[in-house]
This record gives sequence, structure tokens and C-alpha cells, in this order.
Amino acid sequence: MSSKPASYSAKAYSVSSATAPFKPDTIQRREPGDLDVQIEILFCGVCHSDLHFSRNEWSSAMPASYPCVPGHEIVGRVTKVGPKVTKMKAGDLAGVGCMVGADLANCPFCKAGKEQYSPTQIGTYGGTEPVLGTPTQGGYSESIVVNEHFALRVPTNLPLAAVAPLLCAGITTYSPLRYWKVGPGKKVGIVGIGGLGHMGVKFARALGAHVVVFTTSNGKKDDAIRLGAHEVVISKNADEMKAHAGSFDFILDCVSADHDINAYLALLAPEGNLTLVGAPEKPLAVAAFSLLMGRKSLSGSPIGSIAETQEMLDFCGEHNITADVEIIPIQKINEAYDRLLKGDVKYRFSIDMASLKNES
Amino acid sequence: MSSKPASYSAKAYSVSSATAPFKPDTIQRREPGDLDVQIEILFCGVCHSDLHFSRNEWSSAMPASYPCVPGHEIVGRVTKVGPKVTKMKAGDLAGVGCMVGADLANCPFCKAGKEQYSPTQIGTYGGTEPVLGTPTQGGYSESIVVNEHFALRVPTNLPLAAVAPLLCAGITTYSPLRYWKVGPGKKVGIVGIGGLGHMGVKFARALGAHVVVFTTSNGKKDDAIRLGAHEVVISKNADEMKAHAGSFDFILDCVSADHDINAYLALLAPEGNLTLVGAPEKPLAVAAFSLLMGRKSLSGSPIGSIAETQEMLDFCGEHNITADVEIIPIQKINEAYDRLLKGDVKYRFSIDMASLKNES
Repeated sequence: MSSKPASYSAKAYSVSSATAPFKPDTIQRREPGDLDVQIEILFCGVCHSDLHFSRNEWSSAMPASYPCVPGHEIVGRVTKVGPKVTKMKAGDLAGVGCMVGADLANCPFCKAGKEQYSPTQIGTYGGTEPVLGTPTQGGYSESIVVNEHFALRVPTNLPLAAVAPLLCAGITTYSPLRYWKVGPGKKVGIVGIGGLGHMGVKFARALGAHVVVFTTSNGKKDDAIRLGAHEVVISKNADEMKAHAGSFDFILDCVSADHDINAYLALLAPEGNLTLVGAPEKPLAVAAFSLLMGRKSLSGSPIGSIAETQEMLDFCGEHNITADVEIIPIQKINEAYDRLLKGDVKYRFSIDMASLKNES
Repeated sequence: MSSKPASYSAKAYSVSSATAPFKPDTIQRREPGDLDVQIEILFCGVCHSDLHFSRNEWSSAMPASYPCVPGHEIVGRVTKVGPKVTKMKAGDLAGVGCMVGADLANCPFCKAGKEQYSPTQIGTYGGTEPVLGTPTQGGYSESIVVNEHFALRVPTNLPLAAVAPLLCAGITTYSPLRYWKVGPGKKVGIVGIGGLGHMGVKFARALGAHVVVFTTSNGKKDDAIRLGAHEVVISKNADEMKAHAGSFDFILDCVSADHDINAYLALLAPEGNLTLVGAPEKPLAVAAFSLLMGRKSLSGSPIGSIAETQEMLDFCGEHNITADVEIIPIQKINEAYDRLLKGDVKYRFSIDMASLKNES
């Protein structure tokens, strides 16, 4: 007869169905095991995926279970570590992104340091808690317990509220920029200035590229320059677009709405790549000739590996890069989701988890 | 007052309009200049592009002018060289592919050895003859004159009729296989067994990869194995497809008909690439999630550079690789086009240009 695994109660905000608003709740976290790190969550970013998942909009690929606590842009302070943990100690800052587990010993992707491709990957929410056997619950909560491998070291020189979004929006944009070798002498386009795009601009600039922002909105022009763009193109203006034909080494497409991908493929130089990090609902209509004539490529990219996430956080520490955030108390989360749908945030909500302490 | 550039008459087969059949004709070729090579054409392969172009089916991108002589899979014997030619001499075998000129001195792509991307590129047909100022005319003709840079050395150990298609079908499949580093330890898919696909199978096998052929036709199974495939998958069989999910490093898609690209993207391993060399008329409906989850990429690829075409021909000489051809006299070209449309050729028509000598 096996005994019930040790767990403790943690305050959280959850939804009880795809259509219910967030309400205060209590969830169970496992007691830290030998290799575990327990983190008091200080800030949690609000990612569009949180909304999609908690409203069960990805039901076919990733059905939600309820109650559901999203949140995978987590930063906090280590409160306890298991006896075999070597990576960090109580009092250290720590971050958690989209993954909290994987079969590190046996999975070939994990052994190759590419956990983001692992079919054994356990999502920070929407996965199965390896000890408790219950659905994993995310960062809209007062604490979390993860294997040390999935806890990231956080630079001490950055404002923590603005660090939280680096754990998903940051790595999601940093990873493809690095993979496609963006750096000095490269001309890079960033399509769409939102939670992802604004990070893409900062990284591409810091990596030394010539950065051109594409936006549909005249109102974002000044902001794009402030974020680091060398040039801004209003994508509705055909002449402005044409002036850049065939000139980009790399384009990072951060747009989740339906848009004409061929118009951007036409801007790539031969052997150029366009990587999608947004996920439009409708399939993209890709003309074969858009790719054929200059051996162009169209890719997608999901988050990044743990090692690359650490590299990104270190890079942010060195270059003083953080997300632009609007800090909200957890009690404003329903309103924040409404505003998210309208694109009414510059550029990421970061939940101050101190606000959760007041909940009974 | 400039004198008329020196030219000579050459027999050819041309169409006089988009709907006219091929008929005997006489065209003008320039007299070889200092750096030119004159080639007696022995064989010319029949590429599907010949049909598209001569029937003006690519009118928006590449409008045809008439009379039109297609043909860009040319192999023959050098009959004369200009005084400054160093690459070959009279009596040598030579090949000509899709390009007969470009601004080698000034174009940055050409200077980088990537003429296939050059906007200054002169097509073997459909371009403008740099000396005569008339439309360039292709290989359905008794001779051709090109700058030595665009004349390829041809291995002497191969049957020439079967060498001709290497100049387009060969390089079009060889180039992406090399670019995406196909070799030992890689699992490679070839979709569609026709003029392009059958070359893809031969190259992928000779490069040392594990080769899987995808075909809709049970009847091509044995032939795919004979061509070099290790495995054959009937693509209509969902179970057979599923068994290969997430396992390919590279897929070469040689299909010009409308088909479900997401079904093949699902077969790619993380960081895998699918390259199109066929050009379906309708845009491909690409689901963003097909690319996102494993950082997969979808590319196109056009022919290859002159240096790479030479490398390919040398590789064919070493590995005894040629196209599978059905040799026809030029008088059968109209019938051959009809059969091409039905896919009734294994796997490329090669025109024996000796047949043109009998025309008046």
C-alpha cells in the first residue's frame, strides 16, 4: 500500500470552466523532493496562451481540465531546496517558464539539451504533476515546486516584474533569432509589436542587427523606435513594403491574426528565413513561388531549451533587457484578459503576486 | 552607326503561339565571341517548364514571346570556342542548363557564386540574347552559343541522352539535398516519383541517406525500390503515413499537383525541413502549428549555381547516375507533351537531336 505523496496547500486564482471568470482558489503543490526547488512566486506574466488554454480554445491539441490555473512566466525567490539540489539555494531568485518536467534520463531530445521538442515534456500547466498525478497548475499562485533542472537563474540587476515575461515571450523570440544567426550585418524584420514583437525588437537590436519593424498601426511608430527599431514600415502601405523587397535575412513574424504571408516572404533575400512565433487560427496560404525563387524558408518556433533560456536571461542581465510591463494585482486578471483581447496593453501584464496574500 | 551583330542560322522546333503545335523552324544564333562556346546539341531533355512556358501558362511572371523554342536540358559537343575561352575546347562534351548569362562582373549574387539568385540572370529561353537583343531560344535546336561560364563539363562515362535531364531535373533535386546536408545517418523522404522525384531518389541514396519514397500509386512501388528507395509509403494510407510521424530530417517534395502539405510536415522530426521543388498552382494551406511545434521549416528551391551544377555532374560521373529517359525524335515532341500532361513517361523524355538533321 503506497502512502499518499506529501503536498501542501497554496493560494491561487483559477477558472472553473471555459467560460467562468477567475476566482480565488486553493491548490495542492508537492512537497519538495530531493532534486526540487520550491519558489515563492513574486511576479507572473500574462501570456496569450494562458487565455487560449484556460478558455479551452486549444481543446483539440491541449484540452484544459478544471479548475485551471494558468501562468508560465514565473519569477520568484527560492524558499526551500531538496537535499540533492546544487543549482540554487534558499534566498536565490529563480524563474520558471513553460516546462516543469521531462524524462531527462531517457528522452533523446532532453539528452541533446533540447527539452522543448520532448514528447515527455510536462507543461507548467496542462500537464500531469509527476508526483501528485494531478493536472499541473501554473503561476497565478503563491508558490511552485519544480525539479531544479527547470528552475532558471535570474539576474539580480533587473526589475522582477519586467523579468517575468522573459520566461515565455523572451525565450520565444530570442531562440529563433539565435537559431537563424541574427547579428551584426543582418537585416531583420519584426512583424507586429505586442508581447512577443516588442521583445523581438529589443533582442534583435541588442544582437547587433539592423532592425525594421512592421506594424499596421501608425500609432506604434514612435514606440517601435523607442524599443530599438532602426526603421518602421506601415505594412498597409504597398510602396513602403515594396521598397524592402528581397532585402531581409530574417523576419520574425509575431502576428496571431490572419495576414498575407506572401507579402512578407517577398521581402526576404535569397536563402532568407521567416519564422512564425504567432499562431494564426486559419492556415496560411503560401504560394509555392514565394519560396521557390530564392530558396526561401518559412519556419515556426516554440519557446527554447532550458540551456537557451538561461543564456537568454544572462544576456538580458548583461544588456539590461526586460519586457515593458503593466503591473496588475491578481484581482484585476479578468479585466486584463478583456484588455488582452483588444491588444490594450504595452506590452505585457505582469501580476504582482503580493496581491494574492490578501486573499483568504 | 553600329553594324549588325554576326549571327548564323540554326534549325529548331518552335511554337508560333500558346496553342500552336511544334513545327520545324530556323532561328538565329550569335557567332561565338571571345569568351563563347558553340555547342552542337546532341540531346535535349523535356522539362515540364518547357510546356508551361511555351503555352504561356506563366504569363504573369514570365510571358512567352513567339516563335518560342524551349529546352534547357542540353548536352552536346563543342564545335568552336572563342579565342579567350579556357574552360573547354572543340570536341569536348558540354552541357547547358537553365541559364545562359548574367552580369558576372557586377552582380553580388554572381560574385558570390550563386547565379541562380541573380536578377541579371538570362534564361536559356525566355530571356534576352545579350548580343542579338532578340529573345533567347532553347535547346530544341541543333546548336547553341553561350559564354563559357554557363557551359558545364560533362563526364565522358555516361550515356548522353540520360545526361541531358541532369541539367535541370538533376540540379534542381541535387541542390536542396546538399544545402540541407543530406547524407549518412539522415532519413530522407522523396514525395512523388516523376522527372524530379526519380532523380531525388538516386541522389539521396548515393549521398548515403535512408530514403523513403512517397507515392499515391501502388504501381510505382517496385520502380521506387529499383531507383534506390529503402522504403516506399503509399501516401493515401493514413496508417502507413502515421508510422513515420516526426521521423524525417528532410523531405523533398516534387509534387506539382495540389496536396496536403501538413500531412508531410507532420512527418518531419524537430528542426526538419521540407523543400518544395514542384510548384502547385494553388497556394499551400500551411497550418502554423505544423511548423511551430518542432521548429520545422518549409522551403522552396530553384535549380542551383553553376559551380554546384558542375559538382552535381562530377558526382554523377563518379556514381554512374543518370536520368531514366525515353529517347524521342524531335518530330514526336507534340505527342510527348500530351503524354507529359498524363504523367506517361518514365521518367523524362530526351530528344535525340540527330533527328533534326533530316528537317529541311
